[in-house]
Amino acid sequence: MEETGKSRLEQQLAFLMEIDKMKSVSRRTMLTDLSRRETDAEHSWHIALMALLLAEYAGPEVDVNRVIRMALVHDLVEIYAGDTFAYDSQGKETQRSREEEAAGRLFALLPGGQGDELRALWEEFDARETADAQFAAAVDRLQPFLNNCVTGGFTWKEGGVRSPQVYERLDLVRQAAPQVWPAVERRIQACLEKGELEK
Amino acid sequence: MEETGKSRLEQQLAFLMEIDKMKSVSRRTMLTDLSRRETDAEHSWHIALMALLLAEYAGPEVDVNRVIRMALVHDLVEIYAGDTFAYDSQGKETQRSREEEAAGRLFALLPGGQGDELRALWEEFDARETADAQFAAAVDRLQPFLNNCVTGGFTWKEGGVRSPQVYERLDLVRQAAPQVWPAVERRIQACLEKGELEK
Repeated sequence: MEETGKSRLEQQLAFLMEIDKMKSVSRRTMLTDLSRRETDAEHSWHIALMALLLAEYAGPEVDVNRVIRMALVHDLVEIYAGDTFAYDSQGKETQRSREEEAAGRLFALLPGGQGDELRALWEEFDARETADAQFAAAVDRLQPFLNNCVTGGFTWKEGGVRSPQVYERLDLVRQAAPQVWPAVERRIQACLEKGELEK
Repeated sequence: MEETGKSRLEQQLAFLMEIDKMKSVSRRTMLTDLSRRETDAEHSWHIALMALLLAEYAGPEVDVNRVIRMALVHDLVEIYAGDTFAYDSQGKETQRSREEEAAGRLFALLPGGQGDELRALWEEFDARETADAQFAAAVDRLQPFLNNCVTGGFTWKEGGVRSPQVYERLDLVRQAAPQVWPAVERRIQACLEKGELEK
């Protein structure tokens, strides 16, 4: 029994119900059928599968099982901190402190060692220093990009995003999965030609 | 280049956009805040994390990384076959043939070897013969059960489900994660006492 009076298992089950809230955190990205925006839980699932299916384009030092775990937990802090739009420079300023506070609150729900493990995985993702984190960050950027391409550049138009910002944001894909990059660049060019993305 | 004329990568990216439809497949399970039902993508994310966090209760022969992969792909066929409610005996009769057909259509979008791998993972989950599949099936049943418990037995009441059916359905948890079982049984009893589940 831990200090809280809850058994280890009951702490884990309580955490697992608390994170149901990931299904209520809305992101900017639209579903491909344009019916609504996706949730954090849906996005996390999508990039986990993306990591699984595109593993062959990661460097040999990448452990895809760890990348999948990172994908599953990388946005959990948004339960309390909310989603920050990729191109929202104002939101970006306070993002780190909001997320630090959220992490303290969220991971404390788990039994000590396990909370620390999950937090470490999130910190590693956020720091983008390891090869695993870089590949995880690459798929985290690739998915909303692809959804944007098939929805006529929806969030770019909405947010007044221009191509240099997209190039900068997707540069992680070029670095972590260079063989995927030509497919990204072709799409950016096609979006520019169709006027779905501004120069 | 494959027969379709699409490169391997382009086939993978097309598949990854096709499965965005998992965000539009609605399940019976309600979110814990009762605001709406969850989607297949959200459910898959939730049980992948459940497998990760409850791994210590799985048998020593279970490979949790494989279980997580199974969790991520186990419902993909529902993109075409739709979700079948756990206690819908009529739907259950046609479920297998509907899902077989869906699998043929869906996994054919991927390059050969990779489509076969994903399909094999889904078949393994569905057959529930390996230890990995049994643990994956256990978390697949535990999550809607827990969501039901915190939403006053919502889908049980709605579907006229009674406790023997719940006991039968959750028996996989007792088998694959026996240490978790007492927490399940306590909850069933509490739901019975509160009249959230009928005897």
